[in-house]
Amino acid sequence: MLSALSLAARAAPRRAGPTAPAALRAYSSSTSRNHNQQQQQDEQQQHRQARSELYRIDFDRAFALLAVSALAGFGAAQYAFDNFGRAPVECEAVNPLQRIKGNAPMSTRMEALVKKIQSDMTSALEELEGPSGGRFLHDSWTRKEGGFGTSCVLQDGRVFEKAGVSISIISSPAPKTMLAHMRARNREGLDPNGDYKMFVAGVSMVVHPHNPMAPTFHANYRYFELRKSDAKETDPPAAAWFGGGCDLTPCYLFEEDAVHFHKVIKDACDKHDKSYYPRFKEWCDNYFNNTHRGERRGVGGIFFDDLEDKSPEQLYAFVSDCGNSLVKQYIPIVRKRMNMPYTQAQKEWQQLRRGRYVEFNLVHDRGTKFGLATPGVRIESVFMSLPLTARWQYNHTPAPGSPEEKLLNVLKTPREWV
Amino acid sequence: MLSALSLAARAAPRRAGPTAPAALRAYSSSTSRNHNQQQQQDEQQQHRQARSELYRIDFDRAFALLAVSALAGFGAAQYAFDNFGRAPVECEAVNPLQRIKGNAPMSTRMEALVKKIQSDMTSALEELEGPSGGRFLHDSWTRKEGGFGTSCVLQDGRVFEKAGVSISIISSPAPKTMLAHMRARNREGLDPNGDYKMFVAGVSMVVHPHNPMAPTFHANYRYFELRKSDAKETDPPAAAWFGGGCDLTPCYLFEEDAVHFHKVIKDACDKHDKSYYPRFKEWCDNYFNNTHRGERRGVGGIFFDDLEDKSPEQLYAFVSDCGNSLVKQYIPIVRKRMNMPYTQAQKEWQQLRRGRYVEFNLVHDRGTKFGLATPGVRIESVFMSLPLTARWQYNHTPAPGSPEEKLLNVLKTPREWV
Repeated sequence: MLSALSLAARAAPRRAGPTAPAALRAYSSSTSRNHNQQQQQDEQQQHRQARSELYRIDFDRAFALLAVSALAGFGAAQYAFDNFGRAPVECEAVNPLQRIKGNAPMSTRMEALVKKIQSDMTSALEELEGPSGGRFLHDSWTRKEGGFGTSCVLQDGRVFEKAGVSISIISSPAPKTMLAHMRARNREGLDPNGDYKMFVAGVSMVVHPHNPMAPTFHANYRYFELRKSDAKETDPPAAAWFGGGCDLTPCYLFEEDAVHFHKVIKDACDKHDKSYYPRFKEWCDNYFNNTHRGERRGVGGIFFDDLEDKSPEQLYAFVSDCGNSLVKQYIPIVRKRMNMPYTQAQKEWQQLRRGRYVEFNLVHDRGTKFGLATPGVRIESVFMSLPLTARWQYNHTPAPGSPEEKLLNVLKTPREWV
Repeated sequence: MLSALSLAARAAPRRAGPTAPAALRAYSSSTSRNHNQQQQQDEQQQHRQARSELYRIDFDRAFALLAVSALAGFGAAQYAFDNFGRAPVECEAVNPLQRIKGNAPMSTRMEALVKKIQSDMTSALEELEGPSGGRFLHDSWTRKEGGFGTSCVLQDGRVFEKAGVSISIISSPAPKTMLAHMRARNREGLDPNGDYKMFVAGVSMVVHPHNPMAPTFHANYRYFELRKSDAKETDPPAAAWFGGGCDLTPCYLFEEDAVHFHKVIKDACDKHDKSYYPRFKEWCDNYFNNTHRGERRGVGGIFFDDLEDKSPEQLYAFVSDCGNSLVKQYIPIVRKRMNMPYTQAQKEWQQLRRGRYVEFNLVHDRGTKFGLATPGVRIESVFMSLPLTARWQYNHTPAPGSPEEKLLNVLKTPREWV
């Protein structure tokens, strides 16, 4: 169905006005669900108004709508955009976090959290791009089995070669194959023949700057929940866990950057469990590993999965602190490096390192494998993490003692940074 | 061990003189095995002479040496180069085919055949590069478990962005895991606990031209043989089969090119079995398939594996005809396209298609997977097929009716070309 809203959105200019804060520019129509026809019309009216009045829209009303729709449950989006896998539409995630009460279901709070993280990071990156720089295109989609998402992509900007920050909120029956997979991962309590519904809320980002001195950055935080199909809203889920992490991939090693990156995330971890940072730092080094080259992808960060060793409340607090640290972790580093001078040879070395990034994502990354094995997957979302450009040069070996070799040495033998 | 020969080779200029035919330039020291010290010294003398006298070397003597060493068995090369994974060395495969008798063992004849194919193709590609164009670097290696090879790589030439033509001659004990794998592939006759030695001779090539109108080309022909470790030289092998194929990957579709490419290989197939071309053409379409995008890699060609439906003699004749057709299949096409004018947008489309090529090779290709799973593999040889540069652009969709869309339509629905 081609809604009036999506038509209006297409007619809108793709680049948002430089004066509008990203979080306040508009609201995502795809997050408004289970509302009636009148509400739909209101939203469309608001959207048009937002565009025509330089984004001065009625935010209280927008937030109220979003809070209502976010709390209303996790059915499929009421109207599907016809732009699935097509040209981007202008519709933006907002931050309804402040409207979510502490006693709201975890799924609701995680949905709000991933939207906030998306909004904060896209705003921070656009700020670095500056008034005349690149802007994120917002590509919203719905999934017919239940769920929706927004991929924000900035391509060939002033500072960034490619940056993608996407969220997915999936709510649908859990496939039986997934149950078998979950049981194999120490969740034997699940009934292999039972009917479950799953909920996933996740945010994922990969940022590739132009300047070879500025590192690539990746982060991903997610929440997964399984419930019996006939469970009541107030019943605890049959299983629930958190996963995620962040890692930094420089082409040239500035040790102070690696220290800063690790220090910020260690501080976030230590507030919740002193064992988290060392465990998750090692997990990250082992996970982002181009085993076929004997090289880690970068200088690491943290990585964890299937985390359920504390109460959901405690883990939510931990993941919130991680997610809310991302801007502080990365932005100061790229600000420091993005205008440094560099040579053509250094650019080519960056392109070779981009090739290694592609190798990891296509050969080893579990998320990519899972995506490629999922029928009907939106391949552009799976491959959003790939750099705009990459290079493979036969048998390239850095000169002994060069900065390029210095990086390789750290990739071969990960270091403790804090 | 750093031999005097490899030192001499390093001291030689990397680019061969334009007047020396590639097949006659020098001979590969790594193919000379099981000879005595005097012979080694003779070879070294010859090699130096070849360099100093503009490649006018004593070919009769060289061929005789090669024929002797090729017939002498398949032990490890007598001296290992220290350049494994390092800078290329100048040492070239030659064509000893004319010296191999018809009653020589199949392994000997296949070794000679793959060397001939390598020599013919590198000569033909260098001829297109012209006197001032790029030249192949020859990177020879030995494998401590038994075997050797030469990777010929031309990078950033006048016509070709990257071209790799490599041969491997492997002769070593067969790992038990491989036996299990073979038994699972309809070779139940093999004793799972038996001691076998394997022999593999293969040639593999991937050619990426600069000009987006000139298609990428890939081919690979190989012979595999298993023998009981205690078998006599004259015993027939416990198992032996052939595999290979060729395929064409255009960025812009010129139907006459696809027709020519398929016609040449169909003619070669039809001489041996009228059912081969249609069967192997379909196999190719199904194999070189980016299933995650619903796109074939290119306009196909042929593909076959585990071929043992005729006598080894008959299959050798078939594979010889295929291998000897490669130059005729590809060179006229690239000659016709390599100087066509093109725009920056067309170049970017080519780069996107290069990205798809990387996706196939890293995600789907069995050869790459096998390579990555092999301990101690020479990763630069596995990844030689990757283009020099590639691009991933979020959600790129060609305009309706454009030449880019025309190509995509053929990739989505393979055609019969002859």
